[in-house]
Amino acid sequence: MADLLTTVDDQQLADRFDATRRLTEVLAAPLSAEDQTVQSMPDVSPTKWHRAHTSWFFETFLLVPSLPGYEVFHPDFGFLFNSYYEGVGARYPRADRGLVSRPGIVEVADYRRHVDAAMTDLLGRGPDPVTASLVELGIQHEQQHQELLLMDIKHVLSRNPMLPAYGPRGPQPPGRAEQPTWTTHPGGTVPVGHAGGEFGFDNEFPRHLVHLEAFDLADRTATCGEWLAFMDDGGYRRPELWLADGWATVTAEGWDAPLYWSSREDGWHEFTLAGDSRVDPDRPVSHISYYEADAFARWAGGRLPTESEWEVATLARSATFGTAGNLLDTAALHPAPVSGPTSAPFGDVWQWTASAYSPYPGFAPAAGAVGEYNGKFMVNQYVLRGGSCVTPVDHVRATYRNFFPPSARWAVAGLRLARNA
Amino acid sequence: MADLLTTVDDQQLADRFDATRRLTEVLAAPLSAEDQTVQSMPDVSPTKWHRAHTSWFFETFLLVPSLPGYEVFHPDFGFLFNSYYEGVGARYPRADRGLVSRPGIVEVADYRRHVDAAMTDLLGRGPDPVTASLVELGIQHEQQHQELLLMDIKHVLSRNPMLPAYGPRGPQPPGRAEQPTWTTHPGGTVPVGHAGGEFGFDNEFPRHLVHLEAFDLADRTATCGEWLAFMDDGGYRRPELWLADGWATVTAEGWDAPLYWSSREDGWHEFTLAGDSRVDPDRPVSHISYYEADAFARWAGGRLPTESEWEVATLARSATFGTAGNLLDTAALHPAPVSGPTSAPFGDVWQWTASAYSPYPGFAPAAGAVGEYNGKFMVNQYVLRGGSCVTPVDHVRATYRNFFPPSARWAVAGLRLARNA
Amino acid sequence: MADLLTTVDDQQLADRFDATRRLTEVLAAPLSAEDQTVQSMPDVSPTKWHRAHTSWFFETFLLVPSLPGYEVFHPDFGFLFNSYYEGVGARYPRADRGLVSRPGIVEVADYRRHVDAAMTDLLGRGPDPVTASLVELGIQHEQQHQELLLMDIKHVLSRNPMLPAYGPRGPQPPGRAEQPTWTTHPGGTVPVGHAGGEFGFDNEFPRHLVHLEAFDLADRTATCGEWLAFMDDGGYRRPELWLADGWATVTAEGWDAPLYWSSREDGWHEFTLAGDSRVDPDRPVSHISYYEADAFARWAGGRLPTESEWEVATLARSATFGTAGNLLDTAALHPAPVSGPTSAPFGDVWQWTASAYSPYPGFAPAAGAVGEYNGKFMVNQYVLRGGSCVTPVDHVRATYRNFFPPSARWAVAGLRLARNA
Amino acid sequence: MADLLTTVDDQQLADRFDATRRLTEVLAAPLSAEDQTVQSMPDVSPTKWHRAHTSWFFETFLLVPSLPGYEVFHPDFGFLFNSYYEGVGARYPRADRGLVSRPGIVEVADYRRHVDAAMTDLLGRGPDPVTASLVELGIQHEQQHQELLLMDIKHVLSRNPMLPAYGPRGPQPPGRAEQPTWTTHPGGTVPVGHAGGEFGFDNEFPRHLVHLEAFDLADRTATCGEWLAFMDDGGYRRPELWLADGWATVTAEGWDAPLYWSSREDGWHEFTLAGDSRVDPDRPVSHISYYEADAFARWAGGRLPTESEWEVATLARSATFGTAGNLLDTAALHPAPVSGPTSAPFGDVWQWTASAYSPYPGFAPAAGAVGEYNGKFMVNQYVLRGGSCVTPVDHVRATYRNFFPPSARWAVAGLRLARNA
Repeated sequence: MADLLTTVDDQQLADRFDATRRLTEVLAAPLSAEDQTVQSMPDVSPTKWHRAHTSWFFETFLLVPSLPGYEVFHPDFGFLFNSYYEGVGARYPRADRGLVSRPGIVEVADYRRHVDAAMTDLLGRGPDPVTASLVELGIQHEQQHQELLLMDIKHVLSRNPMLPAYGPRGPQPPGRAEQPTWTTHPGGTVPVGHAGGEFGFDNEFPRHLVHLEAFDLADRTATCGEWLAFMDDGGYRRPELWLADGWATVTAEGWDAPLYWSSREDGWHEFTLAGDSRVDPDRPVSHISYYEADAFARWAGGRLPTESEWEVATLARSATFGTAGNLLDTAALHPAPVSGPTSAPFGDVWQWTASAYSPYPGFAPAAGAVGEYNGKFMVNQYVLRGGSCVTPVDHVRATYRNFFPPSARWAVAGLRLARNA
Repeated sequence: MADLLTTVDDQQLADRFDATRRLTEVLAAPLSAEDQTVQSMPDVSPTKWHRAHTSWFFETFLLVPSLPGYEVFHPDFGFLFNSYYEGVGARYPRADRGLVSRPGIVEVADYRRHVDAAMTDLLGRGPDPVTASLVELGIQHEQQHQELLLMDIKHVLSRNPMLPAYGPRGPQPPGRAEQPTWTTHPGGTVPVGHAGGEFGFDNEFPRHLVHLEAFDLADRTATCGEWLAFMDDGGYRRPELWLADGWATVTAEGWDAPLYWSSREDGWHEFTLAGDSRVDPDRPVSHISYYEADAFARWAGGRLPTESEWEVATLARSATFGTAGNLLDTAALHPAPVSGPTSAPFGDVWQWTASAYSPYPGFAPAAGAVGEYNGKFMVNQYVLRGGSCVTPVDHVRATYRNFFPPSARWAVAGLRLARNA
Repeated sequence: MADLLTTVDDQQLADRFDATRRLTEVLAAPLSAEDQTVQSMPDVSPTKWHRAHTSWFFETFLLVPSLPGYEVFHPDFGFLFNSYYEGVGARYPRADRGLVSRPGIVEVADYRRHVDAAMTDLLGRGPDPVTASLVELGIQHEQQHQELLLMDIKHVLSRNPMLPAYGPRGPQPPGRAEQPTWTTHPGGTVPVGHAGGEFGFDNEFPRHLVHLEAFDLADRTATCGEWLAFMDDGGYRRPELWLADGWATVTAEGWDAPLYWSSREDGWHEFTLAGDSRVDPDRPVSHISYYEADAFARWAGGRLPTESEWEVATLARSATFGTAGNLLDTAALHPAPVSGPTSAPFGDVWQWTASAYSPYPGFAPAAGAVGEYNGKFMVNQYVLRGGSCVTPVDHVRATYRNFFPPSARWAVAGLRLARNA
Repeated sequence: MADLLTTVDDQQLADRFDATRRLTEVLAAPLSAEDQTVQSMPDVSPTKWHRAHTSWFFETFLLVPSLPGYEVFHPDFGFLFNSYYEGVGARYPRADRGLVSRPGIVEVADYRRHVDAAMTDLLGRGPDPVTASLVELGIQHEQQHQELLLMDIKHVLSRNPMLPAYGPRGPQPPGRAEQPTWTTHPGGTVPVGHAGGEFGFDNEFPRHLVHLEAFDLADRTATCGEWLAFMDDGGYRRPELWLADGWATVTAEGWDAPLYWSSREDGWHEFTLAGDSRVDPDRPVSHISYYEADAFARWAGGRLPTESEWEVATLARSATFGTAGNLLDTAALHPAPVSGPTSAPFGDVWQWTASAYSPYPGFAPAAGAVGEYNGKFMVNQYVLRGGSCVTPVDHVRATYRNFFPPSARWAVAGLRLARNA
């Protein structure tokens, strides 16, 4: 996982740990005990499970092996809150997480405090580089679950016919999307992947060369307005636009719009974390699958970029932009309207790429159970880049590889078009 | 449903209403918000759903049509808390009740108070006989859901690997089961069904004649000790003992013991509302399906009684016993040990009969949506008689017809043997 | 199974054996090797499987135990062609019978000849009464499979978009259905079940008393014309007409007409053994489930008769009619038009009754594997009476109990209305 | 699909057409009508379907558009024998191909003769380059179905408990596998993909540059003996060796050996086209999924090669070897024993690569329905290279991209190890 050579300042690490742990609780705070218990589909986990699992991660990979005298909070929590680490032992079935009412949110809060106190102790002892690196991994891991917590509760609340809100609508900047412009990249044999020096997940390493043909990348993500045009043009009814598996999914699932969209008398609405909302044509489209992104790109006369194309083009552009964007820190919790012909490379929506999620040449997972973090998922998934409005702001970078199966729609995911130059 | 000729004293009815509504809340009180939200399988409903649905029943069938000026508590609750009344309108899918976090338990309590206040108003106006009869039906309906609430939460808690208890163990009378004795009934053409004069569900009417051959009925229910002997004799591995559909179910589900039983180093345990417990050979066996009851009876050289046999034999015996037994009022919440060769005809466990659930000759459901109460379920189910340790004490009688599909195991159901005389 | 006291004439038995075996081959003759191989759903068996299985029955229950020196035709056929006899041993999965291309029809014909020759030998030795009784059972068993063969191939051919015919259309007598008349039966405590003296299946015994209220039974079966009226009146769209499980099935399966019916520009068509045909309003409706029969009866203001009602009413009427009717010997292979207000009690279509398939009081299956013939299926099924246009003529009688699950539609099954007198 | 610039000699094309069509019939000849009708799983098609579908391909894409006055053989065959071309129209469901008994094999043979005669006419007219290119595509297409025919009938026959043979065992050269040797490739920015000048499928184009790190590729495929060592070392029981989806599949399916392997008293056997056979440790392992190939490689301390690595290494080596190998022309129909430390790059078994099946940069499918040939399947599949013992000898080349989902096991697929240099 982490690049072990990183120099970590102990106090900075402890501060980051505290801030991250606190943010999780802030995100869960608007949710009732009942809200935090429900699992609306196997991909979704209950809020209280996220709160407990992230604590289990620190307990299992840091406190038990590295803090002398540490006692686990509860002997059954290892079974209940292990997500997928075969090397750690047996675990409760993922699809049944919503059947477990106890521990409730009060006991989960106790668990978090127990772990936090012990971690403070551990961090105060001046952790060695390997330990510090695992703490950093635990922080990054918890940030991933912050995004999952919001994705998941959105799905949970969407299943309620009353369409209740997670919270009030965030700041609503005005905006009006214009025709996108394109930036051309000349291609060549270029380096991709994490350059080291700061934290990166193991799947971003090693940095390596790829050969690219020249290509164009759109300067903004596709909007809901463009998606409505795709729908109006029979996008969900024309098999020639779709991959075979995509068309089979459209047919079997009856898809005729992005997830969370519904047709009403006054037009299309979408469910948001602030409840029901009219679809805004100027915002980036989100909650689409890879299949839909691919079909839309074909309809639009373009294609999805590969992850390498996205990365080299974005790194060029980010020299100007950094990773600023509509990320979790904006508190918008929803894609913001595009203003003009461009949008930030980061934020708003994750962007599906045309790249199947595979190991980079020379990839080697870490030893031990923590090595299960990324590598074993490198099949049947596609890479997404860029971060979304529910991604923690200090969690994303140009080399970051997010991934979902091509049928998944509950991530805040959209697309940016590419084409051959 | 109800026999409309019953003379109902208004104050008695109001008192029964109050007591019944209060009991539901007492039964739910030990359960956290999280506990009350979970649905562990499609047959199970969340506790808070039971609390809301029983209120919806009064709101829909009494308050809206009969209380001038009544306003429904929430416009969406009709959709959320209708169970199966097609005549009333659309409803939320049964299997998804566990996905609805809101309304939470606080709002459900508000809903109950709102309905109770209005019902007090209605009852204070001196309801006409038809209305009073519907109130009685609503009370009986809520009593059924009291049993369901306990059956369901037992299943919910059983899915938690920590095997948490609903509450402390109830009174534990000592007992030692002896060989059962048999009572012979001479048969003949005899009346069965409700004789009128008191409340009965529509499915208990009309009283009619059936012809019975002479038969013997065991004086007690089958025990866990006898069930262990059945298991030791290969009961779950010998297809010749089983109905074809039963054997297919045993094979597909991997059944090798009653629901909630698990094999440990020190023998068989069962999950109870008081948590994990060793199987007690002197208690009536419970949580078995019709298939298992039928196979056991075949193994034991007997058969299940028909519902008519059970009824006429029990009515003869109940002249002595009444309907006393280990019912909900004992607070045992678990079958009690059998003492000697007999047990009460009522209580401890529902008793599977050999009778498919069919309408009595001349059966006619009530007009309107309330006519859906029983009649439309008269297929693919078997009749059970006698009540269980979680049945409200004033809810059961010799003519009462409970029913479940032959594969159902989450009811507190056992059996009593019969044989040809 | 059989009533063992029957006096069987040896030569008559041998002749019946020969004729029955020959008829099976006559029924299979129009079918190609490809036709005889296909299994279109788990309930259906390939034609060549029926031909082999009926031979296996004689081999297993007669030749192996009773013919000295008999050698089984092929050591694997016991596994391949055992249908459901757990007592005989393991067997190939029912749902996979269509995956077995070998033995082909030539080898199956060899198998039949091998068994026939050995049976001729056995029958020539003057079988003892028990053996003769098993031969009779084997003959009756093969007759059941003759009907299944035709039911099954109809389903197979119906799945072919070219709607090929099994054979040419049979004789087409004219007819015009008129309003049915009703015959009243006074009820009382009356005997039902097989009286002995001739062959009967074990499920028809023992004869016993039942008590019936007075009732009316319609003098003819319901017609396609009446069914079209039911459909026009929203029969498949009105939940109040249906049992709950029936409505769930209608919704899940999208039923809007009987099996094999399809709507065309010029009206409703149905698939028959002679290929595509227009629905004839004067013929008895067929290929309906119990759920549909029950809903139709409710819509029509009547109900289905119980099997006892059907039996006592038919026995009274059959004093005049015998068991004559449109059975397999008419070669019509399709229900014939009703002429006037009555139809024969037997033939055309099996008639769903309101009776769940249960053992008669005192029922005892035969010892050994042959005891699995009927008893183990006495759950989750309903009784049908009367025989159909594909039932062998000497196979049916008033006490005969056919049975299918309530959702089954591939039998030639309709209904006759009853009502309370 | 095809490279349209290829100069095709008319007579050569006609000869190739004839030979290819003839070979299909030769491959089908040993199979009975019953054998040719069965579909043993959705992925499998009946033999007679392959024979008809390949004819439909010529009829649809050549005869109908290009032969004046051509009349289709049967108006329903377009619906029945269209495989997946949405642009051509509706089609019979793939999973139900085994339910269609008619047309039988005699009518399918007539269909083939009808198409062949018309094609001879068309080919005699001197087809223009586009037409000739489509004929070549049709020939290549039929060759693919020749391999599928053999893969599919192997699966069909394997489901028969008698394990019948397709035909007698082919030539059995002796052999003894030794430790593999490795060839190192220096990597660099190198061209991959079809260079043009001869036929290639559209998915092999365009030729383009990729950057490779230095790597080693084993000089032979993995053997059954090595697979047995993997199994003995707990290969199927150790989750740390598996991708997450692979482990989930192993668990759900109960895999403990390659498809067609079964454990007997005298060791492991495998089902072959010649019937049951002992597993030979010196032969290449086959009938493994991508998941198994990947887990084995991890266990062996190596990895699967990417498709680019395989291609550049094989092209280097094939300068010596050509595409000779144990392909369909050897009539072995089973992998041959490896002799020494090397095996041919081609033949015996398809070799799973680590490359997800994606379009090459600049890939563009053909216009019209024939453009559905490859492109729409470029998701959820992995690339295999090299051809197998059931691949037509003139059908394979170093740039050929075969593909299957990662869980598929019915192809004759094994692996060759790679490692970082």
